[in-house]
Amino acid sequence: MNTVVQRFPEQGDFNRAARIEMAERIFADIRKLSEDGPGVSRESYGPGEQAAIDYCAELARAEELTVRFDEAANLIIEHAGKDPDAPCIVCGSHLDSVPQGGNFDGAAGVIAGLIALIRMKRANITPSRTIRLMALRGEESAWFGQCYLGSSALFGQLSKDDLDLEHRATGKTLGDYMGEAGADVERIRNGDRLLDPADIAAYIELHIEQGPVMVARNFPVGVVTGLRGNIRHANIVCTGEAGHSGAVPRWLRHDAVMATVDLLSKIDGHWQALLERGLDLVVTAGMVNTNPEEHAMSRIPGECKFCLEIRSQSIDTLEAFYQLMRSEADNVGRERGVKFDFDRRNLSDPAVMDKGWIKHLLDTCKDLNIAAEPIPSGAGHDAAVFANRDIPSAMIFIRNENGSHNPHEAMEPDDFMHGADALYSALLDPPL
Amino acid sequence: MNTVVQRFPEQGDFNRAARIEMAERIFADIRKLSEDGPGVSRESYGPGEQAAIDYCAELARAEELTVRFDEAANLIIEHAGKDPDAPCIVCGSHLDSVPQGGNFDGAAGVIAGLIALIRMKRANITPSRTIRLMALRGEESAWFGQCYLGSSALFGQLSKDDLDLEHRATGKTLGDYMGEAGADVERIRNGDRLLDPADIAAYIELHIEQGPVMVARNFPVGVVTGLRGNIRHANIVCTGEAGHSGAVPRWLRHDAVMATVDLLSKIDGHWQALLERGLDLVVTAGMVNTNPEEHAMSRIPGECKFCLEIRSQSIDTLEAFYQLMRSEADNVGRERGVKFDFDRRNLSDPAVMDKGWIKHLLDTCKDLNIAAEPIPSGAGHDAAVFANRDIPSAMIFIRNENGSHNPHEAMEPDDFMHGADALYSALLDPPL
Repeated sequence: MNTVVQRFPEQGDFNRAARIEMAERIFADIRKLSEDGPGVSRESYGPGEQAAIDYCAELARAEELTVRFDEAANLIIEHAGKDPDAPCIVCGSHLDSVPQGGNFDGAAGVIAGLIALIRMKRANITPSRTIRLMALRGEESAWFGQCYLGSSALFGQLSKDDLDLEHRATGKTLGDYMGEAGADVERIRNGDRLLDPADIAAYIELHIEQGPVMVARNFPVGVVTGLRGNIRHANIVCTGEAGHSGAVPRWLRHDAVMATVDLLSKIDGHWQALLERGLDLVVTAGMVNTNPEEHAMSRIPGECKFCLEIRSQSIDTLEAFYQLMRSEADNVGRERGVKFDFDRRNLSDPAVMDKGWIKHLLDTCKDLNIAAEPIPSGAGHDAAVFANRDIPSAMIFIRNENGSHNPHEAMEPDDFMHGADALYSALLDPPL
Repeated sequence: MNTVVQRFPEQGDFNRAARIEMAERIFADIRKLSEDGPGVSRESYGPGEQAAIDYCAELARAEELTVRFDEAANLIIEHAGKDPDAPCIVCGSHLDSVPQGGNFDGAAGVIAGLIALIRMKRANITPSRTIRLMALRGEESAWFGQCYLGSSALFGQLSKDDLDLEHRATGKTLGDYMGEAGADVERIRNGDRLLDPADIAAYIELHIEQGPVMVARNFPVGVVTGLRGNIRHANIVCTGEAGHSGAVPRWLRHDAVMATVDLLSKIDGHWQALLERGLDLVVTAGMVNTNPEEHAMSRIPGECKFCLEIRSQSIDTLEAFYQLMRSEADNVGRERGVKFDFDRRNLSDPAVMDKGWIKHLLDTCKDLNIAAEPIPSGAGHDAAVFANRDIPSAMIFIRNENGSHNPHEAMEPDDFMHGADALYSALLDPPL
């Protein structure tokens, strides 16, 4: 790992070109450390993530930043401020990835923070408060079926059952992996609070956009207004009545597919109408299936299963749309003589980003002449964990093509540096 | 089989009660000959069908009717008319069934014809023309993947490829089975015409209704106006673009499920509107599936496959509705940025029933004080083969609960006898 020190000698002028060059080298190096066929695999609390963490720690030490690990084995890199007792400002993100994932989801936020701290250090700038970079572990649910592991552990939010979750491939438990990574599994299992929210003045996370909005709208940096929560049903069963497709006229049919189509079409119509009224809402039926054991081209389908997910930044919108959907399901059921059976409803709360920080980040972009717009985050992030502990939280999105969780993520280095520069400036001049 | 003769001794008075008793015994006996777990299995050109044919032949011989087999191994039972050279009137149906099927689909028409001939014979009534009962073989497509085998063979309509079709279970070919049943496979393979349409004045088939209309409308006998043809696509693929369900807003989505829902919903709307204009039409999407290899609750579906079947008695309605559907698919594709790929279109022509015979059958029911209504046949029948050879054809439907092709078919003996009596009277007084 001491190649790092050779690769990044101290420079007099850490100008924009030099910062982009460093970022590109770091991305290339951590990609190499976790290549896995078409993409990268940095397992939560596993070797790929550990290699990226070790790499960043080594680099930070070479830059003479303070490096340590907290009790959940998250990497902590700090640059001390003028008032060491004041609550610090945290920036960060995660270094793990999904299997065969992309190189930027998560890593971009850690590398942006690292470059910001190096820039402060090299320029001998002492911020008013300590700036802390956290490389949070286990953000992705792909490995243990649960997300936000490193941040949840800090706030005593991982249960005993969570620690018994098994790794998708090895069957070893999350507790085993955390222990091997150096976490204090005993205290985490007890639900101890390992980090006091009062010690953190703000949590700022930079992340690639996982949707296509910024490419379509043509702006490189977004400031996240809120993280959408969701209501989900994994399995809704529409039960009608099977019958001969030629012999049963429309008025005697109880066609489960046409009833499902009717319901989803009504949902789509309401969704469109509510968007026109300015509400934040996305609706997805990602899986729809007739029963392969009995469906046929010449058989009126007696059963159709589907899932439904509603997301919004507003809990009110979520609940109101959910009730509307249920009431339309009742209507369609009555009109068409079918029944919709809903499995357990799962609610994940939205997270609100701090209004002061949203304004500060937008203002900072304006000052730096960076085109930026407010944008909701459809996906969840560690920022939700901090926000829901009442820590003022904010997120910077970087334009990125082809979504995330795949090897085709495409973030331009120039866009990345716009976001990283905004982060740097915003951290130095916090709205506190 | 000579128990048959003992079971049905000649009776002086073959009154309605006696006819119902005979029908019930025959149904019970042929059920016993082909029981297969929950239902009956009378394989086309196979043992179950053969047993039922042998049983009917034996019974007809005991009643001193003329019994023979034609070159396609169909059972022929005749009662000679006054003018033996005039084209005969054929009644009939089939004796095969689907696997684990019901006892009435097909058999009802053969048994109704048999009872009609026995009644004439016992009453010493000589009809003007010879009445021929045909128990046609292989009507069901369930065994060799193709239907109307016995009737098609007679008109030289079975190809060499058809004869090479393999039995679903044994892998032996249709040609093998036909040969073993006594058919002249050589001539069938040559496409020889084994029956001259000019020798047949009319083809009248009694059959159970396979839909719920007559139960819902509460009439025991229906007179079929036409047999619906159909246009089918077994596999239509809607291709959109997969994406993160939280991160892609509605205006940037190319959701394959919502596009399919949109198309099917528009089709359903047009269907409803056309029914209100009095057109004959049924539309079914019996199979709908997202791709199980990639679909997920939090993924905008990039692909949705479905089948579509349109049925109507009118070829014009079929074609017009098909074009409307294709044009809506283009519209939805354009609006939503998805693509609908249609596999091979399959057209099966509708069959028109003879207007004179429809009127004659309705008049006959009226004379006999039997409640009867005109009704389309959604399913195909051998009558379509005769009708499409320009033989005046007609069908009588018997009320039947729970559809067909399942062990729960439920035809009341009294309803059956209403239809059988109408058949008897109509055969004796043909509109010729």
